[in-house]
Amino acid sequence: MTARSLLGKIVEAASGIVKPPAHRRASRLAAALRTLVSRRGEASGATLARRALALYRGLDDAGRLHFFRLLARDFSPEPEAVLAAATAYHRDQSPANLARLERVTEPPRQEVFRRMNMAPGGTAALLEMRTAVSSLVRQHAELAVIDSDLTHLLGSWFNRGFLRLERIDWRTPAAILEKLIAYEAVHEIQGFPDLKRRLADDRRCFAFFHPVLEDEPLIFVEVAFVDEIPEAVGPILAMSSAVRDPRKARCAVFYSITSTQPGLRGISFGNFLIKQVAEDLRHELPNLKTFVTLSPVPSLRGWAREEMKKPRANAELETLRAQVAEALEAGGAPPEPLREAFEGLAAWYLTRVWTKPGVEGDTHARDSVARFHLGNGARLERVNWHADLSPKGLAQSYGMMVNYLYDLGDVEKNHEKYFTEHTVVHSSAVEKLARLIEPLMLDEQKMGSGSFFLSAEK
Amino acid sequence: MTARSLLGKIVEAASGIVKPPAHRRASRLAAALRTLVSRRGEASGATLARRALALYRGLDDAGRLHFFRLLARDFSPEPEAVLAAATAYHRDQSPANLARLERVTEPPRQEVFRRMNMAPGGTAALLEMRTAVSSLVRQHAELAVIDSDLTHLLGSWFNRGFLRLERIDWRTPAAILEKLIAYEAVHEIQGFPDLKRRLADDRRCFAFFHPVLEDEPLIFVEVAFVDEIPEAVGPILAMSSAVRDPRKARCAVFYSITSTQPGLRGISFGNFLIKQVAEDLRHELPNLKTFVTLSPVPSLRGWAREEMKKPRANAELETLRAQVAEALEAGGAPPEPLREAFEGLAAWYLTRVWTKPGVEGDTHARDSVARFHLGNGARLERVNWHADLSPKGLAQSYGMMVNYLYDLGDVEKNHEKYFTEHTVVHSSAVEKLARLIEPLMLDEQKMGSGSFFLSAEK
Amino acid sequence: MTARSLLGKIVEAASGIVKPPAHRRASRLAAALRTLVSRRGEASGATLARRALALYRGLDDAGRLHFFRLLARDFSPEPEAVLAAATAYHRDQSPANLARLERVTEPPRQEVFRRMNMAPGGTAALLEMRTAVSSLVRQHAELAVIDSDLTHLLGSWFNRGFLRLERIDWRTPAAILEKLIAYEAVHEIQGFPDLKRRLADDRRCFAFFHPVLEDEPLIFVEVAFVDEIPEAVGPILAMSSAVRDPRKARCAVFYSITSTQPGLRGISFGNFLIKQVAEDLRHELPNLKTFVTLSPVPSLRGWAREEMKKPRANAELETLRAQVAEALEAGGAPPEPLREAFEGLAAWYLTRVWTKPGVEGDTHARDSVARFHLGNGARLERVNWHADLSPKGLAQSYGMMVNYLYDLGDVEKNHEKYFTEHTVVHSSAVEKLARLIEPLMLDEQKMGSGSFFLSAEK
Amino acid sequence: MTARSLLGKIVEAASGIVKPPAHRRASRLAAALRTLVSRRGEASGATLARRALALYRGLDDAGRLHFFRLLARDFSPEPEAVLAAATAYHRDQSPANLARLERVTEPPRQEVFRRMNMAPGGTAALLEMRTAVSSLVRQHAELAVIDSDLTHLLGSWFNRGFLRLERIDWRTPAAILEKLIAYEAVHEIQGFPDLKRRLADDRRCFAFFHPVLEDEPLIFVEVAFVDEIPEAVGPILAMSSAVRDPRKARCAVFYSITSTQPGLRGISFGNFLIKQVAEDLRHELPNLKTFVTLSPVPSLRGWAREEMKKPRANAELETLRAQVAEALEAGGAPPEPLREAFEGLAAWYLTRVWTKPGVEGDTHARDSVARFHLGNGARLERVNWHADLSPKGLAQSYGMMVNYLYDLGDVEKNHEKYFTEHTVVHSSAVEKLARLIEPLMLDEQKMGSGSFFLSAEK
Repeated sequence: MTARSLLGKIVEAASGIVKPPAHRRASRLAAALRTLVSRRGEASGATLARRALALYRGLDDAGRLHFFRLLARDFSPEPEAVLAAATAYHRDQSPANLARLERVTEPPRQEVFRRMNMAPGGTAALLEMRTAVSSLVRQHAELAVIDSDLTHLLGSWFNRGFLRLERIDWRTPAAILEKLIAYEAVHEIQGFPDLKRRLADDRRCFAFFHPVLEDEPLIFVEVAFVDEIPEAVGPILAMSSAVRDPRKARCAVFYSITSTQPGLRGISFGNFLIKQVAEDLRHELPNLKTFVTLSPVPSLRGWAREEMKKPRANAELETLRAQVAEALEAGGAPPEPLREAFEGLAAWYLTRVWTKPGVEGDTHARDSVARFHLGNGARLERVNWHADLSPKGLAQSYGMMVNYLYDLGDVEKNHEKYFTEHTVVHSSAVEKLARLIEPLMLDEQKMGSGSFFLSAEK
Repeated sequence: MTARSLLGKIVEAASGIVKPPAHRRASRLAAALRTLVSRRGEASGATLARRALALYRGLDDAGRLHFFRLLARDFSPEPEAVLAAATAYHRDQSPANLARLERVTEPPRQEVFRRMNMAPGGTAALLEMRTAVSSLVRQHAELAVIDSDLTHLLGSWFNRGFLRLERIDWRTPAAILEKLIAYEAVHEIQGFPDLKRRLADDRRCFAFFHPVLEDEPLIFVEVAFVDEIPEAVGPILAMSSAVRDPRKARCAVFYSITSTQPGLRGISFGNFLIKQVAEDLRHELPNLKTFVTLSPVPSLRGWAREEMKKPRANAELETLRAQVAEALEAGGAPPEPLREAFEGLAAWYLTRVWTKPGVEGDTHARDSVARFHLGNGARLERVNWHADLSPKGLAQSYGMMVNYLYDLGDVEKNHEKYFTEHTVVHSSAVEKLARLIEPLMLDEQKMGSGSFFLSAEK
Repeated sequence: MTARSLLGKIVEAASGIVKPPAHRRASRLAAALRTLVSRRGEASGATLARRALALYRGLDDAGRLHFFRLLARDFSPEPEAVLAAATAYHRDQSPANLARLERVTEPPRQEVFRRMNMAPGGTAALLEMRTAVSSLVRQHAELAVIDSDLTHLLGSWFNRGFLRLERIDWRTPAAILEKLIAYEAVHEIQGFPDLKRRLADDRRCFAFFHPVLEDEPLIFVEVAFVDEIPEAVGPILAMSSAVRDPRKARCAVFYSITSTQPGLRGISFGNFLIKQVAEDLRHELPNLKTFVTLSPVPSLRGWAREEMKKPRANAELETLRAQVAEALEAGGAPPEPLREAFEGLAAWYLTRVWTKPGVEGDTHARDSVARFHLGNGARLERVNWHADLSPKGLAQSYGMMVNYLYDLGDVEKNHEKYFTEHTVVHSSAVEKLARLIEPLMLDEQKMGSGSFFLSAEK
Repeated sequence: MTARSLLGKIVEAASGIVKPPAHRRASRLAAALRTLVSRRGEASGATLARRALALYRGLDDAGRLHFFRLLARDFSPEPEAVLAAATAYHRDQSPANLARLERVTEPPRQEVFRRMNMAPGGTAALLEMRTAVSSLVRQHAELAVIDSDLTHLLGSWFNRGFLRLERIDWRTPAAILEKLIAYEAVHEIQGFPDLKRRLADDRRCFAFFHPVLEDEPLIFVEVAFVDEIPEAVGPILAMSSAVRDPRKARCAVFYSITSTQPGLRGISFGNFLIKQVAEDLRHELPNLKTFVTLSPVPSLRGWAREEMKKPRANAELETLRAQVAEALEAGGAPPEPLREAFEGLAAWYLTRVWTKPGVEGDTHARDSVARFHLGNGARLERVNWHADLSPKGLAQSYGMMVNYLYDLGDVEKNHEKYFTEHTVVHSSAVEKLARLIEPLMLDEQKMGSGSFFLSAEK
C-alpha cells in the first residue's frame, strides 16, 4: 500500500463519521503528517512534504484551529514511555538509556516540522504557522506546546552561525527595500524617496538574512554618521539634509532597530547585529569613536501617569506633581518649565525601576527598549528633551529619547553588572537627573524643607 | 565579574590540583563552554564562541579525549530532574509540564554545540568534532552520547530544505572541483583532465551544498547520457570518448554517487539527490526516457565465497560449486563458462538475501548499495557481466555491476513493497537468473535428476 | 621633462596672454589632451586621463564652450597631409598608402576620446560630453565635428555585440528601477508602486545594458501579456488590475519602448531589442502567438490640422472637413460621429505620407514611431479609436493608437519592401480605412457625386 | 527582394563563371557581407551577422585565403571619392567636408567587422580572424590592410576603460585556470597542483578580462610576496615551499606576465596591468615597500654571441673574449669565473644597446622585455647571476635574470627620459657592471695598459 493509498484509507475511514469539512481537511492533514514522519515518509519525503504543505495552506481558520488541536494532542510524547525511560535513566545513565530518553521525550511534532521544512517554501510556512499559533494560544492554552516546539526548532535553525549580515543600500533589490518600508517600526519610512535618503553615503543599513529566505531581512538596523551624540531624531530623519562625508564622522548612531518576523519572536538577533555592525564600521571608518543609540522609552508616559496619581504631602512637591500629572494628561509637547522634572522622571525610571522578580528570581528593567540595550551591555548615557515630538513619540516616550552607549570594551562587564547585580550602568549626568527627582519619588516625609528646585540648581 | 574573569577564576581554581597540560586545556575548554551556555554567554555569545573554538582547535589528541570525556560526563541531563519532570508529565500532560520535561531532558551539550556554531567556522568545526568522536566511540563507549547529540543537531541543520542543489561543471571553482577528485569513492578520478571529461556536455554532475559550507559538496552524483541502459562502466569512464549531443540521449545513467562528509554519516541526502536530479533532467532534456544506475554489488564476492564453502550432495552441483568456489578464490576476471552461474548468484543475492531482523523486526537487503537504491524505491533491472574489471571491481563485485531503475511513477509503490513486504522489485530477466541458480542455493535433495545447465538453457 | 611639467610649461606660456579664467581652464585641458595623445601619454595614460577628466568636470559653461571650440579647431586632420595621402592613395592603393591615409584622416579627437575613456567613469563622461555638444551645435555649427566623432566612436563601442539584454523585475536594484521611473517617456510611471505592477508576472520589462554602465538601462521595452491585440492602453496601465497567468496569454504587447541616453541619440538599439525579446519570449512562453505593439502616432494631430486647412470644393466633403478641422482645434476627446473620418485619416497618414526625398533619394514614413517599427519590418495592423485619452495622447495622436505587428517570419521581407519599394505593409482593415477617407484627401474634382459616407458604408 | 534572395541572385550570377568550391564559398561570404553593410542589413543585422559568421567558420584554408583577398580588394575606400573629398577638405575645412572625408576614407571593411561583431561569438571570431590574417600577411602582403583595420577596431574595443581587472585564485572557475596553464609563456605551469601553489596566500595572480570574453584572461601577471628583491626564480616557483603571511612581506615580485591573445598583438595592456596591480596591492598590504620584476633578458645570449665573434687586439681582452665566446657556445651553466664578465655584458646590453632608428627617428632598447618595462617607466635595478638555469633560461638569457623596479612616484619621469633622451634609468650597481665590461666592448686601441680585471677590482 503506498503512502498515497494509505492516506486515502485513513481519509475514507475518517469520513464514515460525519465531520464538518474544515475538520475533515484538518484530520486529513494530520494523517498525512503521521505518514510523513513514518519510515514510509523517508522515501517520498519531499513529495509528501509538498502535499502536506498544500493541505495546510488550503485550511480555513476553523480547519487550522482544528488541525492545531490535533497537532497538540496527538503528536506529544507518550507519558508511559517517558516515565519508563526516565526511570531507566535515573537508575543508570548509560548512553543507551540516554538515547532512549531523548527519543521518547522529543515530541513527534518536531519531526513533523522538520519534514515539512523539506518542501519548497517549508521554512516560510513554519514561520507563518508559528505566527498563527501564537495568536491562538491566549484563547487556546493547549496550543502552547506547538509554539514551544516551533520556537525550539526555529531557534536552532536561525542560529547566528547560519545568518548572513548584509548591507542594504540603493542597489539592493526593490523586493527587499519594500520590506524595510513595510516593517520599520520605530520611525516610519514614507516610501522609496524617504528610504533612499536613509541609504545614502552618510547612512548605513544592515540586516541579517537566512539563506532560505533570501528576500526577507530578519532584523535590520539603521545607522547615521554624525559629529556628536545626537539630541533629537528630527535631523537624522530629515529627507532633505545634505549628505556628508562618512569618513569624517566621529559618531555612529543606531537610530532604529526592527525585528520583522513575528514567527521568530523571542529568538533574539539584535545583540549580535549591533555588535557586529559596530565592529565592522570601526574597521571601515576608523574615524568613528562613539557608537550610540538614539532610542525611545516607549513605556515612559504610561508609567509616569501611574506614578503621578498619588498626591504628595509636601505642598511644593504636590504642586509639582499636579503640574506634571496635568501635562501628562494633556496633548501637545511637554511644557518647557517642567523639563527638569520630566528628564528626571525618565532617568529615574530607567535606572531604578525593575519588574517584579519572576521565575528563578529574574527581574529586569521595566522598559523593553532599555531591557534590550542594557542586557546587551550598553550604558545609559543621556536623556534628550523634546527629541521626538511625533505623535507616537509623544504618546509613548512623551517626546524624550535616550542614548545607550556601546563601548565594545565594556559590554561584557556592563552586561554582567546588569544581570548579576541588577545595576543599570549609566553616566553621572543621568544619575544627577535621577537624584533631582528623588524627592518627588520617595516618601515625602524624608524631605527636608529646602526648595526642590533650588537644590536641583546647585 | 565578567565572563572572562569568571573563566579565569575557574581556571585558577582548577590549576590548584596538578593536572597534565592536556587535561588542563580540556578542562579550561569545558569551563568556557559552561559559561557559554549560561545567561552570561548570551551577551558575549559570539566572542565566547570564538574563544571556545580556538581552545578546541588547540587541543592535542590527549586533550581532546579528555575534553570529550568531560563533555560526555558533565553536560548530560540531571537524572533527578528528569525523573521529577517525567513523573509530573505522566500525571498531567499540561503544556507547562511538557515544557519542563523538554527543558530538563535536552542535554546541555546541545546548547553547547548551538553556541559554538555561532563562531565563524563553527559548523565545520562541529562536523570535524563528530568525525573525531565517532572514531573514538569504539574504544570509549561513553562518548556515544556526544555522537548522538551531534547527529541529532546536524540532522536538523542539514535538513533538505536548507540544501542547495547545484550543477558542477567546468566553470565551477577549482576549490570545489578538487574536492570531487579527492572524495570520489566509486570510480576514482585521475586529476583535472579526467574530471573535465566527466563534466563535458554529455555528462552531468550535481551536488548538494549547505549555505555555510560553500566550497564543500556534501554529496554528489555523476550522470552520463547514453542511448541504452549501459552494460559496463568502461565506456562511461573513458577519457578520450567523443562528446555526444545530450539532447539526443534516451538514457541517463547515475554511475557514481558519493557522500563526502564523515561528520554527516547516517544523515541521508542521496534519496533526495537522485530524485531531484532525475526530475530536473526530465525537464531539461525531454528526450530522456530511462533513469538508471550502473552500480557495484560491493559485498557480492565476500558473500559468495561464504556460500560456496559447503559441498553439495548432487554431484553435478558439487562440481559447479567447486568451480565457482575456485574461481572466487583465484585472481583475474571471472571465467566466461561460469557466466550464468555468477549472474545467477548476483541475482539470487540481491533478490533473496536479507539481513537478520534487528530492533523492531527490521530487516533489509544485505548489500549496502542495494539497500540504498531499493530503499529509495528503485527496481533491480539487470545484472551485467564483466562490467567493471578494475581491481576494486573484481575484489568486491567480482566484475559485475547491476542497474537499478528509477521509474519516478513507481518509486513510492516499490519503496512500500520493499519496507512492508520485504520484497525486492526486479525485472523478469533478473528473476530468471535467480531461478537458474536456485538448485545450487537450495537443499540439493529437492532437486530432480535433470541437468542443471540443461534446464537453464530452456 | 615629465608630462606634468610639460603641461605646466604650456600653461605658463599660455598664461602670458591674458585670458579670462574659463578660457584658461579650457586651454589647460586642451593642452592636457594633447599630451594625452602623445607617446608620453602612453606610459601614464590612466593617470593623465583621470586628470583630464577632472579638468573637464571642473569647467563651467563658458569654459566648456571654449574647450569645445579648441577641440573642434585643433584636433582635426591636417588638410595638407590629408591631400598628400589621398593623392598617393589615388595613384597607388598599396597597403602602406592606405595605412597612411587612415592615419592622417582620422581626427586626433578620436584618440583623445579613446584615451579619456581609460579613466574610471570615462565612458559616462563621454556620453555627457556628447549631450553637451549636441545642445550647442545649433548655435555653434563648427562643433558638429565633435558630435560626429563622438557618434562614430560611441556607435562602435555600443555595438550590439557588447550589450547585455537583461530582464528588469522587482528583484532588480532600486538604483536601476528609479531610472525607469525617471526615463519612461511614453506612459509615465507614477512611482514605485506603479512600477511594481508593470513588473508583475503578466508583464515583462527588458533592457539593454553596457558592461561599464551597470546601473544605466540604455533602452527598455515594457511588455504586457494579454489575450488579444489590445485596443486601448488604459487596461494595460491600470495599477489595480488582477495579475494573470502568463502561460495562458496568447499575445505579447510592446506597449512602451524608451531610449534613455541623449548621448547615444542616433545610435539605434530598438530594432535589436524588440526582436530579441520576441524571440526569447517565444521560447519561454510557447503559447504566445502574436507579438504586437500598442503605439502612439505622435505627429498625427499636427499633420491633420495642416491637411484640414484647405476648403474642399465638394460641399459634402467641405462639411466633413470643417467638422474635422473644428474637432481638431477643440479640446476634449474626438467626437464619436467622426470616428470613421479620424480612423481613416490615421490610416491614410501612416500608409501614404512620406517625407520629401533627401540625400541619396531617401524618403521615409513621416511619423517617427511608424518609421521605427516599419523600418524594423513590422506591419501596420490596426487603428484603435479612443485608445489613449490622456492629455498627451490627445495632444499628439488625437486619442488614437495603432498596432504594429511583428511577425518574425516576415520582418525581412517587410523591411525590404519599406526601404526598396517605399511601401508600408499593412492589413486590409487599415487599407479599407484609408480608402474611406480617400475622397477627402484627393483632388475633389475627381470625386463622383455619390455620397461619401454612403460609399464608405458599402 | 529580400536580403536572402538578393544574396541568392548574386551567388547565382557569380556561379555562371566556373569557380572552385572554396572560391565559391568565399565569394558567397563576401556577398553576404556586402548585404550586411547595406541599409538592408540594418533590419536583420543580427540574423545576417550570424549567417555570415557561420559561412566564415565553414571556410577551409583555401576558401579563407580567397575570402581575405576579396576583403582586401573590394572593401577598401574608393580612390576617386577619397581624392575628391580630400581636395574639398583641403579647400574648406567645413564640418560637412570633414564628415564626407571621414565617410569615404573609412574602409567599408570596418563596418563589415562591426556588423559581424553583432552575432553571438562575433568578437571571438574577429580575434581569430586577425590571428589568421596575421599569419598570412608575410606571404600575401596585400592582406596587411585587413590586419590594419582589425587592429584599429580591436584597439578601440579593448580600450582599458572596458577591461575588468580580476584576481585569479583557487576559487576561480577551472575553465579560466586551464587557460593560465595553457598560456603561461615565461615559466611553464605543470598542471593544476603547480598552479594551486601559485595562487596560494603569499602569491597573487591578476588578469584583465573583456566583458564579452568572460572565460578568457587577456593578459595576466603573477606576483610573489617576499622579503627582499629576489635573486633567482627557483625559490618562487618551488611548489613545495611553505606559504607565508602576505601581510609581513615587504617586496612584491612580478615574476611572470603573459599576453594570451595573438589576435590582440600590438594592443598593449601590460603597462596598465602592472601599475594597477601595484596600486591595489599597496592599499591591500601597506607593508609592501618594493615593487619589482624578476625578468629574463631573452635576446641576451644571441646578442652576446654576435658581439664576441670579432677578436680583440689587446691580448688580455682577447683571452677573455675567447673564454666568453667559448662559454656561450658550450652547453651548461655559465662558468663561475666568468661571472663578472657576463654580468657586465648583461648590464652593457641593457643600458647601452638600442635598435637602429626607424620611422620618425624611433629607437628603443634592443631587448623586448627591457623595452616593455623601461617604456613603462621602470628602472633597471639589478643583474642576477645563475638566476634561471632552466633550459629556456640558459638558451635565451644565459641563466641571468634582472630586476626592473617600479617606483610609482618615478615612472612618469623615467618614461620621459627613456623616450625623450633615450636614456635607460638604472642603479649604480648596474652602471658599475657595465663599466667593468667597457674595455671589452669599446675599440681596444683606446685601452690603457692596465689590467682589465685589476681595474675592475678597484
